[in-house]
Amino acid sequence: MRIGVLGTGMVGNTLATKLTELGHEVRMGARDAANEKAAEWAASAGGRAGTGTFADAADFAELVFNCTGGVVSLQALEQAGEDALRGKVLIDVANPLDFSRGMPPTLTVCNDDSLGEQIQRRFPETRVVKAFNTINHQVMVQPSLVPGEHDLFMCGNDEGAKAQVRELAESFGWPRERIVDLGDIQSARGMEMYLPLWLAFLRTFGTPNVNIRVAR
Amino acid sequence: MRIGVLGTGMVGNTLATKLTELGHEVRMGARDAANEKAAEWAASAGGRAGTGTFADAADFAELVFNCTGGVVSLQALEQAGEDALRGKVLIDVANPLDFSRGMPPTLTVCNDDSLGEQIQRRFPETRVVKAFNTINHQVMVQPSLVPGEHDLFMCGNDEGAKAQVRELAESFGWPRERIVDLGDIQSARGMEMYLPLWLAFLRTFGTPNVNIRVAR
Repeated sequence: MRIGVLGTGMVGNTLATKLTELGHEVRMGARDAANEKAAEWAASAGGRAGTGTFADAADFAELVFNCTGGVVSLQALEQAGEDALRGKVLIDVANPLDFSRGMPPTLTVCNDDSLGEQIQRRFPETRVVKAFNTINHQVMVQPSLVPGEHDLFMCGNDEGAKAQVRELAESFGWPRERIVDLGDIQSARGMEMYLPLWLAFLRTFGTPNVNIRVAR
Repeated sequence: MRIGVLGTGMVGNTLATKLTELGHEVRMGARDAANEKAAEWAASAGGRAGTGTFADAADFAELVFNCTGGVVSLQALEQAGEDALRGKVLIDVANPLDFSRGMPPTLTVCNDDSLGEQIQRRFPETRVVKAFNTINHQVMVQPSLVPGEHDLFMCGNDEGAKAQVRELAESFGWPRERIVDLGDIQSARGMEMYLPLWLAFLRTFGTPNVNIRVAR
């Protein structure tokens, strides 16, 4: 599949690398087509890896990952372009965390709205799925880093889009029965507002390889 | 132990009943000493049960549960009185959920503050422990309602207070190794902001008997 990964940070890098390893054609998108981190990644990731602007990556792709920083995601997606994103599955991995006032970070949107919902409202013809935002980037593509059973959450308004995300997640190693569909995109609120608890787990247990499993 | 339970709703009722069953002397406190729900509870709960105002319950108690609605908790604790609460362990079970604009509810405080922190700041000589707020009231006192292993979270600034809460939780049936201390009272943010995700679990799985287990 042709996949666009928007964002050149650790999350984008880890996902883009895994996706090329799985045989996908990946374009990593950045604000600037000459982004050095993207170029470094592409140089090490082999023939299926390419780089470009956000718009280049979105144009190229059948499916797009939003791995930009949550506080700049809407701006980055604006640059990717409504036309380039139309009809496509957009997996929103970002968390709107503001670290500018130190630790702990706060969320720039929460409670009666979420980044996932903002993106879906701004790009109504894009099939937004919130997923992978509740775990460390390495755990996203290697769930076995966390011992025992634990869950991957997703939500979104488009069932077909969620089926594609489920398939991708399975290819990353997530067992089908541990992928939890929380319904429509409004559940992005809960998935994003979980972050402060996740950060408390990090402080308490001293490892980013931590996740939760729903018992019921 | 002499325990005050502030609040006459389902949470207060369930906790107060369990506490009397365990042999504690319990005073259920309400705004009005003649509160009918408190009187009904006391009539069915036997000789170790009593009722009174918030102040009566706090005066009587060695340890206090805040089971009032989160949006009125500070007001209720004001009525309980700073002197009556001084030096005592206060287990804050409340969530500051505002249902006035329909479902889903929003939090009246979150992100850079929490109800647990507000209470601790207002009553600095009270030993506040946030606990039990991440699960349904029946699960609080009967953890086996949720199948498998799952965790009870708590946080607070006073180690001795947390040790007392741990002991009480064990008497409710929580295994010691499933009681997770998340550090100081600031972690109340994460514990309260988890509620929207918990509500998504309720919608998804159709049962209030749902909880999470930390995998790490």
